[in-house]
Amino acid sequence: MRLLTAGESHGPALVGILDGLPAGLRLSEAEIRRDLARRQFAHGRGGRQRIEKDQARILAGLVRGVTTGAPLALVIENLDYKNWEGLEVPPNRVPRPGHADLAGCLKWGFDDTRFVSERASARETAMRTALGAVCKALLAEAGISCAAQVLQIGTVKAGPADLSDRRRLAAVEASPVRCADRAAAGRMLKAVDRAKAAGETLGGVVQVSAFGVPPGLGSSVQWDRKLDGRIAQALMSIQSVKGVLLGQAEAQAASVGSRSQDAIRWSRGRGYFRPTNRAGGLEGGITNGGVVEARILLKPISTLKKGLPSVDLLSKKAVAASYQRSDTCVVPAAVPVAEAMLAWVLSDALLEKFGGDSVRDLKRALGVFRLRAG
Amino acid sequence: MRLLTAGESHGPALVGILDGLPAGLRLSEAEIRRDLARRQFAHGRGGRQRIEKDQARILAGLVRGVTTGAPLALVIENLDYKNWEGLEVPPNRVPRPGHADLAGCLKWGFDDTRFVSERASARETAMRTALGAVCKALLAEAGISCAAQVLQIGTVKAGPADLSDRRRLAAVEASPVRCADRAAAGRMLKAVDRAKAAGETLGGVVQVSAFGVPPGLGSSVQWDRKLDGRIAQALMSIQSVKGVLLGQAEAQAASVGSRSQDAIRWSRGRGYFRPTNRAGGLEGGITNGGVVEARILLKPISTLKKGLPSVDLLSKKAVAASYQRSDTCVVPAAVPVAEAMLAWVLSDALLEKFGGDSVRDLKRALGVFRLRAG
Amino acid sequence: MRLLTAGESHGPALVGILDGLPAGLRLSEAEIRRDLARRQFAHGRGGRQRIEKDQARILAGLVRGVTTGAPLALVIENLDYKNWEGLEVPPNRVPRPGHADLAGCLKWGFDDTRFVSERASARETAMRTALGAVCKALLAEAGISCAAQVLQIGTVKAGPADLSDRRRLAAVEASPVRCADRAAAGRMLKAVDRAKAAGETLGGVVQVSAFGVPPGLGSSVQWDRKLDGRIAQALMSIQSVKGVLLGQAEAQAASVGSRSQDAIRWSRGRGYFRPTNRAGGLEGGITNGGVVEARILLKPISTLKKGLPSVDLLSKKAVAASYQRSDTCVVPAAVPVAEAMLAWVLSDALLEKFGGDSVRDLKRALGVFRLRAG
Amino acid sequence: MRLLTAGESHGPALVGILDGLPAGLRLSEAEIRRDLARRQFAHGRGGRQRIEKDQARILAGLVRGVTTGAPLALVIENLDYKNWEGLEVPPNRVPRPGHADLAGCLKWGFDDTRFVSERASARETAMRTALGAVCKALLAEAGISCAAQVLQIGTVKAGPADLSDRRRLAAVEASPVRCADRAAAGRMLKAVDRAKAAGETLGGVVQVSAFGVPPGLGSSVQWDRKLDGRIAQALMSIQSVKGVLLGQAEAQAASVGSRSQDAIRWSRGRGYFRPTNRAGGLEGGITNGGVVEARILLKPISTLKKGLPSVDLLSKKAVAASYQRSDTCVVPAAVPVAEAMLAWVLSDALLEKFGGDSVRDLKRALGVFRLRAG
Repeated sequence: MRLLTAGESHGPALVGILDGLPAGLRLSEAEIRRDLARRQFAHGRGGRQRIEKDQARILAGLVRGVTTGAPLALVIENLDYKNWEGLEVPPNRVPRPGHADLAGCLKWGFDDTRFVSERASARETAMRTALGAVCKALLAEAGISCAAQVLQIGTVKAGPADLSDRRRLAAVEASPVRCADRAAAGRMLKAVDRAKAAGETLGGVVQVSAFGVPPGLGSSVQWDRKLDGRIAQALMSIQSVKGVLLGQAEAQAASVGSRSQDAIRWSRGRGYFRPTNRAGGLEGGITNGGVVEARILLKPISTLKKGLPSVDLLSKKAVAASYQRSDTCVVPAAVPVAEAMLAWVLSDALLEKFGGDSVRDLKRALGVFRLRAG
Repeated sequence: MRLLTAGESHGPALVGILDGLPAGLRLSEAEIRRDLARRQFAHGRGGRQRIEKDQARILAGLVRGVTTGAPLALVIENLDYKNWEGLEVPPNRVPRPGHADLAGCLKWGFDDTRFVSERASARETAMRTALGAVCKALLAEAGISCAAQVLQIGTVKAGPADLSDRRRLAAVEASPVRCADRAAAGRMLKAVDRAKAAGETLGGVVQVSAFGVPPGLGSSVQWDRKLDGRIAQALMSIQSVKGVLLGQAEAQAASVGSRSQDAIRWSRGRGYFRPTNRAGGLEGGITNGGVVEARILLKPISTLKKGLPSVDLLSKKAVAASYQRSDTCVVPAAVPVAEAMLAWVLSDALLEKFGGDSVRDLKRALGVFRLRAG
Repeated sequence: MRLLTAGESHGPALVGILDGLPAGLRLSEAEIRRDLARRQFAHGRGGRQRIEKDQARILAGLVRGVTTGAPLALVIENLDYKNWEGLEVPPNRVPRPGHADLAGCLKWGFDDTRFVSERASARETAMRTALGAVCKALLAEAGISCAAQVLQIGTVKAGPADLSDRRRLAAVEASPVRCADRAAAGRMLKAVDRAKAAGETLGGVVQVSAFGVPPGLGSSVQWDRKLDGRIAQALMSIQSVKGVLLGQAEAQAASVGSRSQDAIRWSRGRGYFRPTNRAGGLEGGITNGGVVEARILLKPISTLKKGLPSVDLLSKKAVAASYQRSDTCVVPAAVPVAEAMLAWVLSDALLEKFGGDSVRDLKRALGVFRLRAG
Repeated sequence: MRLLTAGESHGPALVGILDGLPAGLRLSEAEIRRDLARRQFAHGRGGRQRIEKDQARILAGLVRGVTTGAPLALVIENLDYKNWEGLEVPPNRVPRPGHADLAGCLKWGFDDTRFVSERASARETAMRTALGAVCKALLAEAGISCAAQVLQIGTVKAGPADLSDRRRLAAVEASPVRCADRAAAGRMLKAVDRAKAAGETLGGVVQVSAFGVPPGLGSSVQWDRKLDGRIAQALMSIQSVKGVLLGQAEAQAASVGSRSQDAIRWSRGRGYFRPTNRAGGLEGGITNGGVVEARILLKPISTLKKGLPSVDLLSKKAVAASYQRSDTCVVPAAVPVAEAMLAWVLSDALLEKFGGDSVRDLKRALGVFRLRAG
C-alpha cells in the first residue's frame, strides 16, 4: 500500500490518498469522524479546535459504499481557511527553536518561516488519523485492533492499563488525558493547566498496542522489510516524537539474557503462547503472535507563549520567537495518531503476506494460516 | 540509493549490492576491511570470530579503482562454510525464545529452525558494515563522519565521550568494549566475563553520532521522507535493537517546552548555531546543522548456554532451546554496525538533496549550499 | 517524485497528489485548465464533455502562490456526479470486451462491472493531464517543453510536423484532430464522423516529443533506472495504448547497424550534436541531448454502440455488451495525456540528477552542467 | 520482489540479488545454466562466447536446496577477466554512436568511455537471464511458462509459431536463429553471415509469450500498477530494444472498434475464454486469462567493424569510433532475455496478488482463485 498526505495548516484542505486497499471493505465517513474527534477533543489542545470540526469526506475509492481495490481519497476542509483567505499575512522572520522553521528555511531557501511551518505543522496528523481509521476498519476484518494510552505527561507517570480489557479501554477513552489511572490522570490534568498558565508546554509518553495480530507479519530477511524498523519509522515520523521503544526495551538493555526473552509454551487450546511479552510481540522483525507494543516519547511542542531565543532571518539579530495560538500538550491527542500509524504499518504487512485483492480472499488466507500456525 | 544484502550465516558467502553511488569515488578493499575488523574483534564475541577473517571483495562497481555510477557489489566469504559443506546437519526442532525461529517457522511453514535462523542471524551485519564503510567513504567527501560508542552494558553505565575530539575517539576505539571511560569500561569487561561464566548474555546501549552534517537533509513534508523516521527504521532494523532515542528524548518527554528546545544563535564566524543539542540534530524531520545523535537499546542476545524454556515444533513437548556457539555480548560489536546504518541513511539523504551523478558535482552543490546556509 | 491519482468516473471528484516538487515554482490553476481543455475539446469526444468543464482546484502545496517543497494536491470535481448521486443504478452484468470489466470482476470478485469500470475509465486521465501541466511548468524552468501530435487515425496517416517550429505547433493545436497536415486532418475528421455514424470507434497513433532535454537524464546501470523503460511504462499505462516506439524503432529493426545510429558531431557553437535522431534522443537508457521522441499506438476504445459479443456474469449466457454514452475516437484527446506522462518522467529524472529542493538550485546545477556537457 | 544486478563486462563477475522469493522453491544451478547457454550459443554472437562458459553460482538464499524466503544471490564469473586483470588498458576517447558512451561520459563527467561502457554493455543480460530462470522456476509451480521466438532479422520476416505446441517450441529451440520457419530461418542465417562479412550488424523482432497466466494479475487502478506498463518497462530496458508492442497493436491502431477487441465466451469446460487474442492477454492493465504476448523491436547493435562517425572527447576532432570484438546480431540471443524479463514481471505480480511467503501457500491461493475465476 501507499499512503500520501498533502495540505497546509491554513490552506484550503488536507488531502490523503491510500493506494492498495483491497476490495470489499464497507466504509463510512462516520467511523473516520470518530477518530478525528478523539484527536481534536483531548485535554491540552489550543483554541483552534474550537474552530475546526474535522470531518473527512471520501472523494474516491468507494462504489456503492464499499471499496473496489481503487485508491481511496479523503479531504478534510480547514474551516479556519476562510478566516485567512485573502489576508495579507506579514512574513515571519523568526524561526522557532524545535520546529522545522530554520532547518526548512535553509533547505528550501526561504526567509519566511510560513513557507515551512504551514506544512510541517502537526495539523497534518488529522489526515493521518483519518487514513488510519480506514486501516483500522481493514484490520478489524482480520480480527486485529489497535489502542493507545498515555503513560506520562511531564513528570507525572502512570502504569499501563490492560487495553485488551474493554472496561479499561473505556476508562482510557473517558479520560480527557487518555489515562485510566484516575489519580495519575488528575495530576496530569493539573500539570497541563499549570503549564498553560506558565506559558509552557509539556511532553510525555504514549503506549500503543495491537491485539489479535497473527504471527508471521514482517520479515527477518532484509533490513527494510523488518517490521520493527517499519514500526519505528512510522511512529518516529509523528510530529514531536523523539523516541520509539518496543516491548520492555530499557529493562532488556540492562538485564541478562535469561530474563530478557519470552519463554515459548504450547497448549492444545491456545497453540503457541508466551507467558510474558518483553519483546513487544516482535522477534527478528516478525510478529510472534503476541500483543504488538510500542511506546513513543514526545517532546513538549516548541511554540511557547514565552518565545524562545532565536534570530531574525534577515537582520541576524537575536530576538524571541513569536507566539501563535497553540496547544499546551499534545500527548493525549497523539493517542489516535499513534494508533493510526501502527494500523497503517500492520495493514500494509498483512496485505503483503496474505495478498491484497479482496477482503474475502484476505480473510480466507488468514483463516487457513491461523489454523496452521496455532 | 538502494541497499540489499543476501547470505546465510553458514552458507558460502554474504553478498551486498549498493545501487545509486555517484561516480568518482575512490574505493579500496582495505578501508572496508578496517570496519569489518572493528565489528569482529570486540570484547564479548564468541568462538566463530577465530574462524572468520572477514574480508569484502569488490566484485562490481569499480573501473580503474573508482566508482562509475554503477551498482557496487561486495562479497564476504564465510570461511566457516567449508566446515559445514556436505555435513548432514540434523534439523533443529526447538525454536529459541527471542530469535526469529518460531515466528519464522510459522510464517514460512517450516519445522526446522535452520531455514529461518541461517538468514536471521546477526552474521548478516558483516555485510551491512562493509556497505556502510562505502557510505562513510562517500560522506567523507562531503566532510561528514560517523562515530559510535558504548554507553551501557548490562547495568554498567558510562557518560558519553565527545567523539568530535580525536583523542577521545581514539580512546573509544582502543577500548575492547568501545568505552572511553576507563573505570566504566573495566566494570563492563568484568560484567561480560561474569555473564559468560554464568552462561548468560548481556545487552546495553550504543550512541551513534554524525559530525559535519549540513542542515537541510531529509524533509518535513511527508511521513516517509522525515529523516528522523528513516534513521529510526535503519537503526531499529539492526538485530537485537529494541529502542531508538534521538537527542535527549527521555529528558524532553519529562520536561517543559522552554527547557526542551535548542535556542537559535548566529555569529559572523559560525553562522547559525545552537549552544545545546537536545534535538539530536533533527528538527521536523530535517537535519538542523547540529551533530546527528541517536542511541540504540540492545537486548541481550537470545542464544544462551542455559537454554531457555521452549517447545518441540513436532511433538509440542516442553524442552529447553539448544545452544550453539555464540557471543556473550554484541554491544561493542554493534558500534560499527550502528555507524554503518546511520552512514547509509545520511548518504541517501545527501544524494537526494544534492543530486547523485558524481562526487565532484555533489561537492560543488554542497559547497554552494553551505555558503548560503551559513 | 511520486504521482498518485484517485477517483471514479461518476464519483464526486478526481484527486491527485504530486509529492516531491521543488520549492519556488509559481503555479496557477489557469495554466492547468489550458491542458484540461485541450484534452476535453478534441474531435471524437462524446456527450459527456458537454457536461464537464474540467477545472482543477489546487488544495495543497502552495503558499503565497508558489510551491514550498510540500506535496501538491489537486481536485477536479465531476460535475456529472450530481446527476448520478442517489440514483439507484442497476448492476451491469455484461463485461465489455477490451475493457478491464471481466478481468477486474474476476480479480476482485465482483459480479457488477461498475465496481471495476468506474475506476478503469479513461476519465482518470483528466487528473494525469492536470498533474502533467504542473510537471510541464517545472520543465519550462529548465528550458524543456513537451508537445505531441496525431500521426494516424484509423487508416489515415500523416507525416510528423516539426513541433520545435512554433507555427507548426500552432497548426497542430488549431486542428480538431491535432494534425498539422490539412489534407490528412480532413480525412481523419471524415473517418471519425463515418465511424460515429456506423456505431464504431477508431484507434491511431500519437507522437510525443520533448525539446531542450539535457543529456544525462536516466541511467544505463540498472534495468529499472533506464529512462527508455520508464518512458515506456508511463506511456503504455495510458488507457487504450498497446504499443510504444522510441525514435525510428521499426526502421532500425529492419536495417543494418551503419544506418541505424546517429553519427556524433561537435562544433564550437553547438557542442556535441547529431545530424539524425533515429534513437529518439535516448541511448543506453540515457538522454543524449537530442529531442526525446516516442510514438504510442492506441486501439479503438471498446465501448461501442453496436455491443460486442459477451456473456452475462451470472447466467453465463451469451449477450451483447451494453452501450454507454461514449467517445468515438480518443486519439486527439490523448495528445495532452501523452505530453503529461512524458513530462512526468522527465521531471522525475531531472530532479534525480540535479537535486530537488528548489527551482533556483535546480536551475543553477543544470546551468553548470549544460556548460560542461556542451 | 526486488531485482538488482551489478557487474562490469570485463570486471571480475556479475552479481544479482532477487529479494522477495517465497520459501519452498527447489532450485539448482543446472536449470539456470540451461538459459545461460541459450543466451550464449545463438547465431550471431561474437568471439567472446568462446571464452565464457557462463555459470551462475548460488551464493545465498538456499538452505538444503530450497528457498527460505531469504534473498537469493547469484554470481557469474567473467572468465575473460583474467585476460584483462592488471593490463594497462589505454583510455578510449571516442564514443560509439548508438551506445551509452557519449551520454554517459557527459552524465558522469568522464573522458574515457570505458567508465560507461563496462556497465552499459549487454553482458549484463547474462545475470538477468540467470535471475529470470529462477523466476521461471517459480512460475512453473503456478502452471505458467514463458517462451519466445524470433520473428524478424533485418528484412527477413517469419510468421509466429504456436509456442504452446511443444513440437513447435522444440523447433524454435533447435534453430540457431530461434525461428521455427525453416525457410525464413535459412534466410536469416544468410543475412547474418552477409552482415558479418560486410562488417555490419542486424536488428530484428522477438515475440515473447506467457502461457497459463491466470486472469487478475496487475491492476487497472493506478498508472504504475498497470501490468501493461510494467511489462513495457521491463522489456524496453533490455539493451538494443526500441519498441514494445502488446498483442496486435499496429492492427488495432488501424482498425475499427468492432474488429479490435476479443469477444467474451463461456463454456462449462473452459470457463471464460476468447476466440481471439488481439489484446495480448491484457485488458485495462490486468491479465485476462489469455496468452500474454508482446513483441520487442531491437535495433542493430552499435559496435561495428566499420566505425561510425564520431568525435574525440578531448580534441573534439572528427574520428571513426573504434571497434572491439563484438556480436553481429543479438536478436536470437535476446530470446531468453525477453523471457527472463517477462517472467520477472509476472512473478512479481503473482506474489502481489496471492501473497508471497511460501510456494505452498501461493499454490493454494491460486488454486482457490482459478476455481472461482473459471
